[in-house]
Amino acid sequence: MTGTRPRVVIVGGGFGGLHAARALRRAACDVVVVDRRNHHLFQPLLYQVATASLSPAQIAAPIRKVLSRQRNVEVLLAEAESVDAERRVLHLRDGRVPYDYLVLAPGVTHSYFGRDDWAARAPGLKTIEDATEIRRRFLLAFEAAEREADEPARRAVLTFVVVGAGPTGVEMAGAVAEIARRGLVRDFRRIDTSSARVVLVEHGDRVLGSFPPDLSARARRDLERLGVTVITGAKVTAIDASGVEYTPAGAPPVRLEAGNILWAAGVRGLPLCASLGAPLDRAGRVLVNPDLSVPGRPEVFVIGDAASISDARSARQVPGVCPAAMQMGRHAGRIIRDEIRRGPGAPRPAFRYTNKGELATIGRARAVGVIGWGIGWHLKGFVAWALWALVHITYLIGFRSRILVMIDWMWSYLFFERGARLITGDSTVPLRHARQAEPSADRGAGPPPAGTTGLGGT
Amino acid sequence: MTGTRPRVVIVGGGFGGLHAARALRRAACDVVVVDRRNHHLFQPLLYQVATASLSPAQIAAPIRKVLSRQRNVEVLLAEAESVDAERRVLHLRDGRVPYDYLVLAPGVTHSYFGRDDWAARAPGLKTIEDATEIRRRFLLAFEAAEREADEPARRAVLTFVVVGAGPTGVEMAGAVAEIARRGLVRDFRRIDTSSARVVLVEHGDRVLGSFPPDLSARARRDLERLGVTVITGAKVTAIDASGVEYTPAGAPPVRLEAGNILWAAGVRGLPLCASLGAPLDRAGRVLVNPDLSVPGRPEVFVIGDAASISDARSARQVPGVCPAAMQMGRHAGRIIRDEIRRGPGAPRPAFRYTNKGELATIGRARAVGVIGWGIGWHLKGFVAWALWALVHITYLIGFRSRILVMIDWMWSYLFFERGARLITGDSTVPLRHARQAEPSADRGAGPPPAGTTGLGGT
Repeated sequence: MTGTRPRVVIVGGGFGGLHAARALRRAACDVVVVDRRNHHLFQPLLYQVATASLSPAQIAAPIRKVLSRQRNVEVLLAEAESVDAERRVLHLRDGRVPYDYLVLAPGVTHSYFGRDDWAARAPGLKTIEDATEIRRRFLLAFEAAEREADEPARRAVLTFVVVGAGPTGVEMAGAVAEIARRGLVRDFRRIDTSSARVVLVEHGDRVLGSFPPDLSARARRDLERLGVTVITGAKVTAIDASGVEYTPAGAPPVRLEAGNILWAAGVRGLPLCASLGAPLDRAGRVLVNPDLSVPGRPEVFVIGDAASISDARSARQVPGVCPAAMQMGRHAGRIIRDEIRRGPGAPRPAFRYTNKGELATIGRARAVGVIGWGIGWHLKGFVAWALWALVHITYLIGFRSRILVMIDWMWSYLFFERGARLITGDSTVPLRHARQAEPSADRGAGPPPAGTTGLGGT
Repeated sequence: MTGTRPRVVIVGGGFGGLHAARALRRAACDVVVVDRRNHHLFQPLLYQVATASLSPAQIAAPIRKVLSRQRNVEVLLAEAESVDAERRVLHLRDGRVPYDYLVLAPGVTHSYFGRDDWAARAPGLKTIEDATEIRRRFLLAFEAAEREADEPARRAVLTFVVVGAGPTGVEMAGAVAEIARRGLVRDFRRIDTSSARVVLVEHGDRVLGSFPPDLSARARRDLERLGVTVITGAKVTAIDASGVEYTPAGAPPVRLEAGNILWAAGVRGLPLCASLGAPLDRAGRVLVNPDLSVPGRPEVFVIGDAASISDARSARQVPGVCPAAMQMGRHAGRIIRDEIRRGPGAPRPAFRYTNKGELATIGRARAVGVIGWGIGWHLKGFVAWALWALVHITYLIGFRSRILVMIDWMWSYLFFERGARLITGDSTVPLRHARQAEPSADRGAGPPPAGTTGLGGT
């Protein structure tokens, strides 16, 4: 013990970390929450930031603010780099924090399955910065198409490929298709934004592989109705400057010229977790004990997406979703609280995952879902979407965000408007060909040859 | 003429450019609006983004969206670099656009009066990116202070210097002081955010130099009540990594250790305007004819902040404010419209600035203002603030933004909440000293020596 009261260090202010901190609110300990971001992020709605429906502040809340009333918590904006489990010290990029208990809830990062060179061309969606970058590329694609005279080049610019058909991939593909077909149509003069092509490529044999097959089929049909081309059973084998190559099982590779590629295919654990020296699964997540502690380190817990564990009852892998992270946070927090109160030594309860169900939305007013708690009802269409909206608004932390998100959604729902269509950062239009459309008085006739020769000269 | 209809090219989608485009909505011409950003920005509220009260999307609207119903307008996302006035061609960074009429409304940029090396340390506030960068620094200052053990260093981190006491400087200083004193107090454990020091340095002999002296005096009193230190008649003579040096008239220089410096002191015209070859004023703005056209180039107009002109009636310089830009845009647009209809040759009316008044706000529920139209009433306190809020909400383009901003304001007003407290981009805490506070179990006793020695170790 470093002081009179034990210190519990929690790494990560996501759902897992916040719930662990809250479980300790009446415990006689000092809690330190370490995060390299100052905000808690409601990741399930991040795709709406990426597609310009919500703005970042609507799905994020300062961690300090969320925890400001819990007096035994301190928040530290710092990057955790490694754990010295022997000495019970967490190393930061610029300092160190000794701990009595450590709860690691850092989340995961994208996995490109060994092809990290794809990352620049095919960004994934985990942070606010990822989302605003994807939004920038998404909006710039239409701007570039408006200026592109060459028809094949224009088609490539307006081709969006989403790799991976889990919930994030399905939601992104649906949202992109819908915005192109409805939200933007009136704003452009030269292009028909509804001609944008959205291709969803999935390695497995169906979309939403974690859902029951009938819901996968329904999701696929809904996506196709929105104009998304769904390709299953195909592996992405190359990503380069001009597009994607995918290879269907037992068939030759197919090439797609595409200006925008989004990666929603895989995740992997962070180096911070590897630094524990504990056994990891293939994705680099920590194989934790049934009580969520690290083998041989009862004072260290790993929770949330970073943990790899099978549910005690169903023997199925606990999925990397918010409710699981929250439940794990509460579980670890309560074990620590009880041991602080009674002293260690008592047997610890095993974590049990309560599956409340799963929901995935496909554009406006369409979703699929399964109700959990052993009920197992399958929901589709508007009912599933309404439930999805309700659940997501309810979970949003902070009353204020809830109201504003609700207003924004209602507005978008009624008027097909995009609330947050900002291109921030570099607004350079990625023109891929020297030839370029020039505003022309008579649109029927082709534009006069313009070229890019006039650069800066008189 | 390049086609069957004349082409009017407008550079800049700000208030001036948009109003010029709208004045041409029934004219038999093709209008091309060129902007390097995809959004129109409501600059008067930008300081609220910089101080985390509003999020960027709330004060910005896509230019395409604003103009989508005007069928004779095309929007081009492109950077205008220079004008070849002889050949009537606008050169873009990646292309060229010939014009029959050209309206330049590109705004201005910050002027550091020859000390451009100060820009990195003392950012100005013109764009969304400026605002989010200032917000990042502003919020990180409190994070750094929370981790800083050294008292003088902590005080420097929590010292905010605003250079220039025009409306932007006054608004920034007031907002920063208010947030530090009220908005953040409960969220930190080690620092008293209300101990933050805000210093406003002005070269002239009073704040809000363009306002009547009694209102300047009131604004100063309001600022001082908020805890702002107001220093007038002092010139900033150095800005470096650790602070600011200012020199009062006839006195030795004074040094201020300050972690955050904001530049609100001067503006200058853009190279695009200089490329016209027309006479410029000392700040690099184009000295336009009474009809807003460029001397010797009746087909080229310069409007908004980029234009330098004296009002025909009052003989006073037209100020760089939104209403002036809107009026100029309308004026130039109508001249072009009329000449397209009747042919050139008729004498052009001179621009007349209708001064509707001026308002500047100082924190929550305080403002000063003058009613225009020759009435000249002076307003102070809550009445002025209420008028300010009303005017700004009314001017906000887009009904939707209006509702959301109103809700946000009401909310902040009632609950002292900060809606958009996100640090995006690099979240590294700028620790300026090696010594650093460590979370400590017993706060009364000093923290155990921690140092930054553990970096990346075992």
